[in-house]
Amino acid sequence: MSARRYAILAPGAFATRSAKTAHGVIAYARDETVAVIDPAFAGKRVRDAVPYLASDAPIVASMEDALRLGPTSLLVGIAPAGGALPAQARAAILEAIAAKLEIVSGLHQFLGDDAEFARAARTSGVRIWDVRRPPSPRLFSGCAYDVEPRVVLTVGTDCAVGKMTASLELVRAARERNVDARFIATGQTGIMIAGSGTAIDGVVSDFATGAIEELVIDDAVATADVLIVEGQGGINHPAFAPVTLALLYGAAPDAMILVHRATLETIETYRTPVLAPERAIAMYEALAATVKVAKVVGVALNTKDLDDAQAHREIERVRARTGLPCDDVVRFGPGNLYDAMQAGFASKVRPLAG
Amino acid sequence: MSARRYAILAPGAFATRSAKTAHGVIAYARDETVAVIDPAFAGKRVRDAVPYLASDAPIVASMEDALRLGPTSLLVGIAPAGGALPAQARAAILEAIAAKLEIVSGLHQFLGDDAEFARAARTSGVRIWDVRRPPSPRLFSGCAYDVEPRVVLTVGTDCAVGKMTASLELVRAARERNVDARFIATGQTGIMIAGSGTAIDGVVSDFATGAIEELVIDDAVATADVLIVEGQGGINHPAFAPVTLALLYGAAPDAMILVHRATLETIETYRTPVLAPERAIAMYEALAATVKVAKVVGVALNTKDLDDAQAHREIERVRARTGLPCDDVVRFGPGNLYDAMQAGFASKVRPLAG
Repeated sequence: MSARRYAILAPGAFATRSAKTAHGVIAYARDETVAVIDPAFAGKRVRDAVPYLASDAPIVASMEDALRLGPTSLLVGIAPAGGALPAQARAAILEAIAAKLEIVSGLHQFLGDDAEFARAARTSGVRIWDVRRPPSPRLFSGCAYDVEPRVVLTVGTDCAVGKMTASLELVRAARERNVDARFIATGQTGIMIAGSGTAIDGVVSDFATGAIEELVIDDAVATADVLIVEGQGGINHPAFAPVTLALLYGAAPDAMILVHRATLETIETYRTPVLAPERAIAMYEALAATVKVAKVVGVALNTKDLDDAQAHREIERVRARTGLPCDDVVRFGPGNLYDAMQAGFASKVRPLAG
Repeated sequence: MSARRYAILAPGAFATRSAKTAHGVIAYARDETVAVIDPAFAGKRVRDAVPYLASDAPIVASMEDALRLGPTSLLVGIAPAGGALPAQARAAILEAIAAKLEIVSGLHQFLGDDAEFARAARTSGVRIWDVRRPPSPRLFSGCAYDVEPRVVLTVGTDCAVGKMTASLELVRAARERNVDARFIATGQTGIMIAGSGTAIDGVVSDFATGAIEELVIDDAVATADVLIVEGQGGINHPAFAPVTLALLYGAAPDAMILVHRATLETIETYRTPVLAPERAIAMYEALAATVKVAKVVGVALNTKDLDDAQAHREIERVRARTGLPCDDVVRFGPGNLYDAMQAGFASKVRPLAG
């Protein structure tokens, strides 16, 4: 299916961080969004609820209203902690299936495995695409060390700080310079945008590094100049750091980009302090140095909580403290950061060998 | 079932590291081993094939021979990389099921989910215990920070260096001193020995930290003095380090014991150099310091490749380089290391808070 028209289901959540899947698809996917379902903003436009999304798509109160706008697909546009489906969303999904919409979900709980959804989908003849469904298990082999493209991994100081966005913006900057850069999606939103990828957080722990390796050694990306791998979590995230580390060792990057959100003080819902950029850089580089050396070659600073003057000051401060190129790739575009980073990932790096 | 009599299936593998599950159960489980099936050593005794196992159990050529010795259970005593079942073991397992033996397996591929095994088990009325089958998914909550017992985690420089053994030996030393220490099993062999636990490498990545937390906050261990958590992998293991990190953040230890195997130079089948003990200690402590401070308070050195004089020299060398108590808890017993470590984990540690 090449031209989806999405209705996005995000009841009571569209303006929150838990709707980041929906925001990402609206901002970056080629697929069109024809309606967002969230009674809290019914009658408004996407840009009214989430100002940074330059979209006029209407927000409606119900699935019934959304169906009038001709969607082909329902995107389950929420990402609740733990991935389980809120009970109130069930009825809406069944309604969409009855109306013959494709169902696209990034939840941990596979909708296709739910007996009621599966039966309804069979009856209606629609597809349920659980984007987090993992590939066949395979162990990390070390083949990732031998790929031709330079591999760049975005790493972060927390979840939801903008690693996917920074990756997509840097890919865009590369392409504008006629560099064949590919976005390697590792989370549900990224996969919906890219149309392929693996949700690493849904892979059994033993096989997480192997699953990432599989993405970078894929024949489909072998001729690219640069692979920009979407990072996940943060290295001191009390719950998700194992996924972060799986990406670092499994993608075997030649260079890293640190993504940090200015003003963020604690990790998600935990009391754990967010690492200062320079400390996060030291941690990522120290870990990489035990397997395959990779340096952080730039900082993508998310300044969305600041005004322009504050943003400039904060970018300067991080630049001074890290000694690295730093910019907000959303606010000021990815060009400057991309150009400044070029020297940093100009060549392949060999892994350590004993 | 409280008194198992095991037949252990390890064809062509009993004397190799891939049979470490079998070795662990023979060395530490209360269940008796009545036969090992490995044609390569048929007619010999366990101690002939694996000298450090002080067991006279016979090694036989076939399941048929093993059944004459009256086993109640068949332990699938191999741990192939990736966890998939070798084809030649299928016939033996079906033969055991037909003979009404319980099947105990630590493989990633659940034998109970195999249609042929499941059907045979139903027909014979026997149980298939897949010890790696994961618990219900739960996210890490932070409750691990509030448990009463002091928590000690064994961490290592590679897989199969002796983390489980060191944990079990330290539990034994604690109990000899009337300290209520419990062994928290996190891998298939440990679970078979303890009769409970969770194989963390089989848990979906997002829930790995939560699965470990669940073990340390379990009511059944709440009144213990010390929990000694079995570590997994190594922090620079290219494939399994995410499991290692999940244990570090999920168990939220108050102290760590480093387990290192003298003479080991590269990680398992990879070319990645094994970290020197002092460098591994620095790495583990640096990571812990980003969430909840925990120090390495002793080194359990596995010297099984050395003679006694070499072992003493190597222990002295590691002691000098790390500044920590160090001993081989198998060769010289766990008493000295346990006593020397006491000061190091005398009290609970609070997590960092932003």
